[in-house]
Amino acid sequence: MNITNRVALVRAWMQSRGIRRYIVPTIDPHNSEYVPAHWQCREWLTGFDGSAGTAVLTADGAWLYTDSRYWIQAAEQLKDTPFTLVRDDRVAEEEGDVVYDPREWPDPFDQWWEGRPAFPLSKAWKMSDETAGESAESKLRRLVEYLRDEGEEQLLVEELSEVAWTLNLRGDDIPYNPFLIAFLLVRADGCHTLYINKEQIPADIEAYLAGLGVTLAPYEDAPRGNGVKSPVGAWRNVKNAAEADGFRRAHEQDGVAMVRFLRWLQETDVAQLTELDIDARLTALRAESPDYLSLSFGTIAAYGPHGAIVHYEATEESAARLAPSGLLLLDSGAHYRTGTTDITRTLALGTLTEEERSVYTLVLKGHLQLQNMRFPEGTTGLQLDTAVRMPLWRAGLDFGHGTGHGVGHVLGVHEGPHQIRKNVRDCTLLPFRAGQTMTDEPGVYLEGRFGVRIENMLLSVEAKTGEFTEGNGSCNQSVWLEWEPLTLCPYDLRPVMPELLTPDEKNWLNAYHEQVRSRLLPLLPTEEDRQWLIEATEAI
Amino acid sequence: MNITNRVALVRAWMQSRGIRRYIVPTIDPHNSEYVPAHWQCREWLTGFDGSAGTAVLTADGAWLYTDSRYWIQAAEQLKDTPFTLVRDDRVAEEEGDVVYDPREWPDPFDQWWEGRPAFPLSKAWKMSDETAGESAESKLRRLVEYLRDEGEEQLLVEELSEVAWTLNLRGDDIPYNPFLIAFLLVRADGCHTLYINKEQIPADIEAYLAGLGVTLAPYEDAPRGNGVKSPVGAWRNVKNAAEADGFRRAHEQDGVAMVRFLRWLQETDVAQLTELDIDARLTALRAESPDYLSLSFGTIAAYGPHGAIVHYEATEESAARLAPSGLLLLDSGAHYRTGTTDITRTLALGTLTEEERSVYTLVLKGHLQLQNMRFPEGTTGLQLDTAVRMPLWRAGLDFGHGTGHGVGHVLGVHEGPHQIRKNVRDCTLLPFRAGQTMTDEPGVYLEGRFGVRIENMLLSVEAKTGEFTEGNGSCNQSVWLEWEPLTLCPYDLRPVMPELLTPDEKNWLNAYHEQVRSRLLPLLPTEEDRQWLIEATEAI
Repeated sequence: MNITNRVALVRAWMQSRGIRRYIVPTIDPHNSEYVPAHWQCREWLTGFDGSAGTAVLTADGAWLYTDSRYWIQAAEQLKDTPFTLVRDDRVAEEEGDVVYDPREWPDPFDQWWEGRPAFPLSKAWKMSDETAGESAESKLRRLVEYLRDEGEEQLLVEELSEVAWTLNLRGDDIPYNPFLIAFLLVRADGCHTLYINKEQIPADIEAYLAGLGVTLAPYEDAPRGNGVKSPVGAWRNVKNAAEADGFRRAHEQDGVAMVRFLRWLQETDVAQLTELDIDARLTALRAESPDYLSLSFGTIAAYGPHGAIVHYEATEESAARLAPSGLLLLDSGAHYRTGTTDITRTLALGTLTEEERSVYTLVLKGHLQLQNMRFPEGTTGLQLDTAVRMPLWRAGLDFGHGTGHGVGHVLGVHEGPHQIRKNVRDCTLLPFRAGQTMTDEPGVYLEGRFGVRIENMLLSVEAKTGEFTEGNGSCNQSVWLEWEPLTLCPYDLRPVMPELLTPDEKNWLNAYHEQVRSRLLPLLPTEEDRQWLIEATEAI
Repeated sequence: MNITNRVALVRAWMQSRGIRRYIVPTIDPHNSEYVPAHWQCREWLTGFDGSAGTAVLTADGAWLYTDSRYWIQAAEQLKDTPFTLVRDDRVAEEEGDVVYDPREWPDPFDQWWEGRPAFPLSKAWKMSDETAGESAESKLRRLVEYLRDEGEEQLLVEELSEVAWTLNLRGDDIPYNPFLIAFLLVRADGCHTLYINKEQIPADIEAYLAGLGVTLAPYEDAPRGNGVKSPVGAWRNVKNAAEADGFRRAHEQDGVAMVRFLRWLQETDVAQLTELDIDARLTALRAESPDYLSLSFGTIAAYGPHGAIVHYEATEESAARLAPSGLLLLDSGAHYRTGTTDITRTLALGTLTEEERSVYTLVLKGHLQLQNMRFPEGTTGLQLDTAVRMPLWRAGLDFGHGTGHGVGHVLGVHEGPHQIRKNVRDCTLLPFRAGQTMTDEPGVYLEGRFGVRIENMLLSVEAKTGEFTEGNGSCNQSVWLEWEPLTLCPYDLRPVMPELLTPDEKNWLNAYHEQVRSRLLPLLPTEEDRQWLIEATEAI
């Protein structure tokens, strides 16, 4: 059935109901970042498969609204469909609009969408209390106290990562996201309900839940939220000591896989490889890690001009063959049983141009400036962003994407609410405190030529007292923060132009490499790997 | 009459009117930063002479609310008065509150305040159209067009600097502020009215105003504003080419005065001087400038521990005697016929401690980082602020005041709406564009020991295209800004620890000094001054 037929089906239904304008947003019942296939109704209707967009249908019009990231792709995919691309991500409301609601029953798309993907039914597993750092019993008790303080009867936890965090349960219902599709109703009287397809809950988990006062009920019976604001997002955002330790262990395993991969790449004739081979090899090495669960997002392996496409994902058709020159941008990550990783390295495959080297070094400077920042508690992402961009701005370079996002603890690889970016938004005006994960990922993208991005994951920690910290009467700043780099993997030093680095930046680079070496060396399986790491982390 | 008697007078009046709570804010009819003496009712009533605070009276209570800058001073000044200090700058409203309104007629303070300062009656003078860069006729035409576009009949221009800017008129009604106390009513039909005491308007100015369609009327006849938002503040904020040139000429004259002062200070036995002598000498040298009008604010000459008091102003009683060691913080500025200046230098009077030198160098680093920034048009003050603080934060240092404020063109030395500071506020989230003046004034204040502040005035200008500016497809940033330093005066190099500066910072410092030298050398009156400047600006 082609798009024209799909539109005709929906229009017939609209007419029968007297609906003048029908709006289909990209949405699932949980406000998820990655909409499960079952709810990708907007994609099914329009043929446009970008992650953001809204379809609008009238009796004689069809439009697809989306933001600038997707204008080229959407224009291409909407060719030969009834849809007109609107280069705007917001649809102005009109009187009488009907908006598709994924919690409506019956779901109108069921009748139109032949072969609609079934509800995912992965099995739940329990994260140990030791790994979580706090039992679900304790988390539920905090929620009950919160409800009592607020004078509320109940709270519907709707976001999947909040459900997972609260119950210390994980699943595999959404690619790259270890979630279960479920609602959790928390009640002040301690009688809670988990709305989920029962077959996803093994008997031992059911018993565990019963012990917490959590009864099971069918997913579709979940009530609507009553407007009580969930405090879970804010709680989850600040990592406890066990979570921080788990992140460190996960990054050790990820670092071992990365080092083994980098050595393999360096010893391989790259002309025999495509971008897909890079992804496959790295994924296979990660999968050998004892605590590996899954990738945390689709690997971006982008060679040469592909590196300048910010959200490039290689396919069988597009995958470039590599060559012994130029830059390979590699952005990847995984979930382990104790934490989640997200790392980008840009790698020299052979000879480089002067421009490739200078852009690489400027991106590295920005990355190091943020990673080595010390700042007062309460500083916002909008302020921190400047540290990364100053070296780039001075050279007339910039990048359009964010500089940093939070990372969940075996949860979503993009975790709110904080972000570091150059735009004035709610998410960039929130005060930072100790215990927050954040990526540090500046880039520069020269269209048609190459792209550079360098990314570590960081953890905000209280800074040790410096020589001047005391006695500064004018400010009374008592808590200072700094970043602990969680990621353990050498930067490629071959593209670096040392003359562009300040003495501080050289020291930071060498100190980081010293740390990578001492943490990973005991964990590497072969003498050749260890030798490679020692050379890759030599001081400059 | 002491404070107790004043309070009794006001309470009697409150009782006769049935007023339960009477609020006296720090306010004049024009929302001025510096409230003219005539309207300093809150100070008269309480005895507290800080620039911000609110008095609250009931039949048996008296409170003074003020912010943290003034807690020490207010506690001192409120001793032996009926007032209790409230360490908060916001008074919660209560039903039935009566608030003093400076536009009320008759003004109740007239009957209580014996010897209330008269209305200032300075004479108006006209800034030439050449200096203003735009005639008042053109500005009024823009306002009339604005009213027509908005569908409004009239607009009351209430802020004194907006009245002055619109009519290209200046006066001397408020210390340090070249304003006339007046309201301007602009009407869409072109028949405008200036509400002002007529004796302030010489005959030629009256004729000039008549030519603009502006009739005079008594000040007290001014109507109330009708809520139409004045666009003048936003227009005034972006300086035209003539204003920018005028600022440059003003800073040349200011630079000459500063250099002559610095040479004098270096050649004088400082042990014979107090802080007041510094102020007097510098003011006298400025007054010799051909275009000098007045100081733009009270000079801060703060030696040693006084330098750590951010808003220190020396009095006959407090003025410290100088000695040939330690640091003198000197923050000063003036109005000239073509522009306004605001400069801070911190000066070594002799031997310094290691701590004084390192703090001085760190403040200089922050100052240079901002002054030499290049950034995309639209960047906000909150983002720019980080450039200044990073070197300080790294050493565990910070400062509580703002980093930068706008400066008016022969108007207020503090001009909104933009600010550079670390706080999330409306004023720090506004996008910068070309043509804005801004100060760059980081500091560090070590209580009981010393303070360092270094300040230049900057002008935002479009940046020349750099080597990478074109072809950066990911961002499409077309306009880049950089700062032109308006201030022309050497930094004291004697405290500098060159090993704390990056190669970039040394280059910036030397390039700035090279510019100061080439601009000021032809303007200095004596060979000794020229020789001094050459030595003071030698490359490090």
